[in-house]
Amino acid sequence: MSFEEMWRDLAPVGRSAQSGGYFRQPFTAAERECHAWFVEQATSRGLDVQTDRAGNTVAWWGTPPTHAGTGAVLTGSHLDSVLDGGGYDGPLGVVSALAAVDALRERGFSPGRPIGVGVFVEEEGSRFGLACLGSRLATGAIGWEQAAALCDPDGVRFDEAVAGAGLASVPAGLRWDAILDRIGCFVELHVEQGRDLVDRDAAIGVASRIWPHGRYRFDFAGEANHAGTTRMEDRHDPMLTYAMTALAANKQARLAGARATFGRIEVGPNGTNAVPSSVRAWLDARADSTERLDAMVDTVGRMASERARRDGTTVAVTAESVSGAVEFPSDLAGSIVEAGGGRWPVIPTMAGHDAGILAAAGVPTAMLFVRNPTGVSHSPAEHAEMADCLAGVEALARTLERLAS
Amino acid sequence: MSFEEMWRDLAPVGRSAQSGGYFRQPFTAAERECHAWFVEQATSRGLDVQTDRAGNTVAWWGTPPTHAGTGAVLTGSHLDSVLDGGGYDGPLGVVSALAAVDALRERGFSPGRPIGVGVFVEEEGSRFGLACLGSRLATGAIGWEQAAALCDPDGVRFDEAVAGAGLASVPAGLRWDAILDRIGCFVELHVEQGRDLVDRDAAIGVASRIWPHGRYRFDFAGEANHAGTTRMEDRHDPMLTYAMTALAANKQARLAGARATFGRIEVGPNGTNAVPSSVRAWLDARADSTERLDAMVDTVGRMASERARRDGTTVAVTAESVSGAVEFPSDLAGSIVEAGGGRWPVIPTMAGHDAGILAAAGVPTAMLFVRNPTGVSHSPAEHAEMADCLAGVEALARTLERLAS
Repeated sequence: MSFEEMWRDLAPVGRSAQSGGYFRQPFTAAERECHAWFVEQATSRGLDVQTDRAGNTVAWWGTPPTHAGTGAVLTGSHLDSVLDGGGYDGPLGVVSALAAVDALRERGFSPGRPIGVGVFVEEEGSRFGLACLGSRLATGAIGWEQAAALCDPDGVRFDEAVAGAGLASVPAGLRWDAILDRIGCFVELHVEQGRDLVDRDAAIGVASRIWPHGRYRFDFAGEANHAGTTRMEDRHDPMLTYAMTALAANKQARLAGARATFGRIEVGPNGTNAVPSSVRAWLDARADSTERLDAMVDTVGRMASERARRDGTTVAVTAESVSGAVEFPSDLAGSIVEAGGGRWPVIPTMAGHDAGILAAAGVPTAMLFVRNPTGVSHSPAEHAEMADCLAGVEALARTLERLAS
Repeated sequence: MSFEEMWRDLAPVGRSAQSGGYFRQPFTAAERECHAWFVEQATSRGLDVQTDRAGNTVAWWGTPPTHAGTGAVLTGSHLDSVLDGGGYDGPLGVVSALAAVDALRERGFSPGRPIGVGVFVEEEGSRFGLACLGSRLATGAIGWEQAAALCDPDGVRFDEAVAGAGLASVPAGLRWDAILDRIGCFVELHVEQGRDLVDRDAAIGVASRIWPHGRYRFDFAGEANHAGTTRMEDRHDPMLTYAMTALAANKQARLAGARATFGRIEVGPNGTNAVPSSVRAWLDARADSTERLDAMVDTVGRMASERARRDGTTVAVTAESVSGAVEFPSDLAGSIVEAGGGRWPVIPTMAGHDAGILAAAGVPTAMLFVRNPTGVSHSPAEHAEMADCLAGVEALARTLERLAS
């Protein structure tokens, strides 16, 4: 099955008829269907499929790595999406990896070391709130007990969701603690989520680094009251404190050449005729250095506290996850650029990826980007042209050929 | 059963163990339990209970009114609550009415005309979005077809919810179109939702008028995008437009001596790492004249549009319900003040009530308020002292005695 056929196959799964966007939250029917599709594709190619107890899956071309010196080449990405997201973020890396294996086989290439096509679960953190949860578990960045206790917005625990997907009863064939030092490198192909490649007129790029980034929960608390009878001066309205904070975060990010977004909010009791008692909002913040990131978040938190004093409310800031900068090894990136004949530019990314988690765990890691004509991502409008996708498959095939020879 | 016993009986129904607040949305188990309790209490007193097809209920002391000249005296209030609301808003008027009937009977009073204790459904509009839905249906301010099509946040239609509560199969014993001109007056007792009576050191007050008020839906639309990779200057973020609008509404209300509240908001897709595509928020606005109300809402809408142009977003404002000022007839209010020996002050209210709907329909209407020590309402902290509640029962008994003689 060609790349284009695979892409058509996967396109309708979890897609909203209304928005055209994707809802592939981990362990939902749509995401499980994507996963089953992947296992079917891998099996039909004779790959050896292994799954861990969180649902992370690797399909091996060649014998799964057996000892520390194996130097296996891992590629792949994820199949889950943000809420109402695009179809490329994640799946492009997985489908391209399968197509790259096909291309190498057609050329008669015989890998000198095993090549694994991996799928990590809950990369987006759209259900359990922690991005790259699957790869964090794989590398030991988070322990099972801690992950198990994470809850989705409906109060379902991660381990309950895993069990609900039938994974608890599957023997965990994939033991990361045993194989992590048998992986020589990890290469993740991903749709670009900005317009760097458009500006450079290039279909393919290679990643230099990932910006530091974090998620911070802002809990604003006030006092519920009647929206009609309570005088404005008698209120303790946390919505006002939140509103000023959202505007302040935007301004601070502009001043710092950074990013700050309040995209998720929960209001209590969320009634039209009641002054709210609470507003919980999440700040997604990113900057080109940890110092700038910390300074920006501190400033936003300080401005929120000052406004809270004026509003008679309170605010508490909790860092839910913070990732430092990831520098991808320049020799690996350089080797990939060589495989592309020197034509692929090396660019930074502001988005977190499983590749960043594996890099932080000491696995030599690289990323390939495929041009996105509008730069729009995490949106139904996310797109990549088919010609660029096929160029991505070819780039990944050449990269794997070089690394697995 | 005394007022205190009835109050204790009703207190646990629909109460959140976590917040201590009430969740008595119409046609939920909690609200139906309150309703069944009311019917049981009325029946045990030998009152004649009638229900209409929307669930509005009246328990008659004496023969239900049979002809236009009957001049029946209607009292009562509602049993539903806002989300996480207080226990007094609504139930105090219903329980006090039953206790007032008991007090009058104990005194051997024999009414010269029927006295009805009424319960109107969905006064808060917390489920179907339109406040005073039950009394609007009773007076014909809204037609059945229009009400039937209203949906709750889960997409359940009003008529489906009514049928789900088993009301569709109950013969509609109460025909408002037939009896509206047989009602001589309506008196609603209610907990005060401000601190006017505290400032005046009075346990009981009589209403002069209700401020004009309305609910306005603000639909902000932008473009979903990746929270990390999208440059601040490339965004079309409706959250920023909303945030500025919430602050502007607060400021305009302060300037106008009015009220403006954004207490309810829905964000799409509401993900931490996505710039939102949409923010829908509801403005609750009130002022002492229709002109001032319209001017304030127009100003807020204009400021929202100006900010939307800067943010590259759009905003559309829809008035979901607007109620003009209600002037309660001064002769009726004066007569009630006389019944209280001239001690009860006459005060305005900024809250909408079923009394306002009946007044607008031409029924001579009055309201009694019971002191609220903090003024807090639509909140778990809503309260009235038992001594003041009992003073309210006595005030209502005296009022009914005078009006039904």
